[in-house]
Amino acid sequence: MKFEIFNKDENCHARLGKLSTKRGDIETPIFMPVGTCGSVKAMTMEHLKEAQAQIILGNTYHLFLRPGMDVIEKFKGLHNFCGWNKPILTDSGGFQIFSLSSFTKVEEAGVRFSSHIDGKKFFFTPKNVVDIQCKIDSDIQMVLDNFAGYPSSVEDNIKSTNLTAKWAKEAREHFLSKKSPNAQFGIVQGGLSEELRVQSLKDLREMDFEGYAIGGLSVGEPVQEFKRIVSFLAPQLPYDKPRYLMGSGTPEEILWAVEHGVDMFDCVMPSRNARRGTLFTSFGRLNIKNKKYAFDSNPIDSECQCYTCRNYSRAYLRHLYKCQEISSAILNTIHNISFYLDFMGKIRYSIKLNKFKKFKEDSLNGFLRGE
Amino acid sequence: MKFEIFNKDENCHARLGKLSTKRGDIETPIFMPVGTCGSVKAMTMEHLKEAQAQIILGNTYHLFLRPGMDVIEKFKGLHNFCGWNKPILTDSGGFQIFSLSSFTKVEEAGVRFSSHIDGKKFFFTPKNVVDIQCKIDSDIQMVLDNFAGYPSSVEDNIKSTNLTAKWAKEAREHFLSKKSPNAQFGIVQGGLSEELRVQSLKDLREMDFEGYAIGGLSVGEPVQEFKRIVSFLAPQLPYDKPRYLMGSGTPEEILWAVEHGVDMFDCVMPSRNARRGTLFTSFGRLNIKNKKYAFDSNPIDSECQCYTCRNYSRAYLRHLYKCQEISSAILNTIHNISFYLDFMGKIRYSIKLNKFKKFKEDSLNGFLRGE
Repeated sequence: MKFEIFNKDENCHARLGKLSTKRGDIETPIFMPVGTCGSVKAMTMEHLKEAQAQIILGNTYHLFLRPGMDVIEKFKGLHNFCGWNKPILTDSGGFQIFSLSSFTKVEEAGVRFSSHIDGKKFFFTPKNVVDIQCKIDSDIQMVLDNFAGYPSSVEDNIKSTNLTAKWAKEAREHFLSKKSPNAQFGIVQGGLSEELRVQSLKDLREMDFEGYAIGGLSVGEPVQEFKRIVSFLAPQLPYDKPRYLMGSGTPEEILWAVEHGVDMFDCVMPSRNARRGTLFTSFGRLNIKNKKYAFDSNPIDSECQCYTCRNYSRAYLRHLYKCQEISSAILNTIHNISFYLDFMGKIRYSIKLNKFKKFKEDSLNGFLRGE
Repeated sequence: MKFEIFNKDENCHARLGKLSTKRGDIETPIFMPVGTCGSVKAMTMEHLKEAQAQIILGNTYHLFLRPGMDVIEKFKGLHNFCGWNKPILTDSGGFQIFSLSSFTKVEEAGVRFSSHIDGKKFFFTPKNVVDIQCKIDSDIQMVLDNFAGYPSSVEDNIKSTNLTAKWAKEAREHFLSKKSPNAQFGIVQGGLSEELRVQSLKDLREMDFEGYAIGGLSVGEPVQEFKRIVSFLAPQLPYDKPRYLMGSGTPEEILWAVEHGVDMFDCVMPSRNARRGTLFTSFGRLNIKNKKYAFDSNPIDSECQCYTCRNYSRAYLRHLYKCQEISSAILNTIHNISFYLDFMGKIRYSIKLNKFKKFKEDSLNGFLRGE
């Protein structure tokens, strides 16, 4: 994997770059639609290609449980299994074990957990999570990390930061021994403590990962805390490596993080909101359930070029939502994912012109005003 | 509307024809995907076009309640509202009032019912159902009919048959007075009584509809009774008019009805089955939930050219079903609807060659064996 930076905005940390993988290039900053189980909810792979998705996300925890590694192995990886031939990044599952499993026991060697589907017990270690992701053949794999939770005590945070470093080292050594053509990213933990974040980064930096992620944010902390950690930490991540902010976010969060040098994003928000009728537009959020759209023959957003906006009116989309038609989820998701990917394209263009700060201000004073 | 018959199979009543409407031609025999509320469940209009759908169904009862006629009128009809520019046929809602409403009162002048959504009461008459469908601007509208239920007493059946004739006359006169460029079909009732079916047909025949439908079948009667009425009645329907068997069916039912001269079909079966994981194939039904497909890298049906079969394996589709992904409903529905439309294409081709009977036998002894 190669990462090139074509331009760093003159007025902030924002960077325009390209991540090259064996399955294609990814222009950064990029948003990665979330396809937890090997499917972005309510979209076909064709819809994703039409929406210009360059990379999608999978989840090790989910894929390990279903369809299971024997199936993934039979298909020689997730790409072939799910019919997506562009890059895939897989999260390690560290966060999902924490958030979904009814039983979790963190040990020095790894984490025991029970499946949220059938209660079966498993043990994830830094090494076997590498092995699993090698079988998935994800273009970018994430190390197994330990998340202290939010809020968390200082002791828990210290413990989690240290364990994350220990696990990262084991994962890195194991990954390197496999001579995989794919990439492995480390995950910086440390919660809301700048001191621990610096320590975590220092630990990981020595391991020379192909990329660095910020974990443990967008977990319920106040937005000011989120901003504080991102603006403090992101610029310190290795400059010549891709930087990935995990699980964030809103357009506002993305703008904040790009300004401070983040390159990669994933979030369920655009797809989840779509299914609930909340649509992103160039003039702010639009609730398609609203009665005022009952007769509205305009598209969701006349500036949007997505399949939904080219073909359907707000009135029809409101009708589909009210009737709980599956096509409501499909058409809304196509729009929101297209909006996010188009938004990232605009961000990239503004960085190219060294005008990201202006783009950000225009966005916040324009379509994001009052959000 | 023009209806031409290009060939009548030499060995049975099957006909190859073309129905010409202002919104395009329909090759018959044809299957019409059911888009009750102006959306075929789990498909976009693009998916329908790719599946080669030539005409879709809407429902007067459902569309009248949601989005309501004021919305439909604002869009100058359903086509413009839902983004489908090929022909649409609308059922009158007679059957839906019977099957969905919690309160129904049949009177000489029409039927009182309460909405299954919010309990609001309405009164449908033969005339206002014509008016509603003129606002919908469906290319083919159905008269308001009265269904006796199944099973039904002789008295109820007689009453329903007579009322259907009375209503049809009122609907026909009203429709003709409007000088609509669209078509209106009458619906033959009479339950499982050949005598009443003949009477109903005689009543309607005098009204010279643009097409004739068989109503009141596929409502739970034994398959032999279904076959008896279809083979008795269908060949007696006016030869030079399209013949439509409402709400049937299975591939077997379609074959039976085509043999006896039926041209048009609609049924929720392919889409509903798809959502439940039952897929139609050229070798019989396939239950995608089945464990034996967990590792199966074949498409649902290697003879099928649909988007799903071109791109996805049984193993992946099984996985999506198990994970209850919305894409499971999308991909399965695309396949089943494509299968049905392709099946109708094969039927048409066999009639062209005067080989429908052979096609039917081959199908029943082949892919439909044991169904």
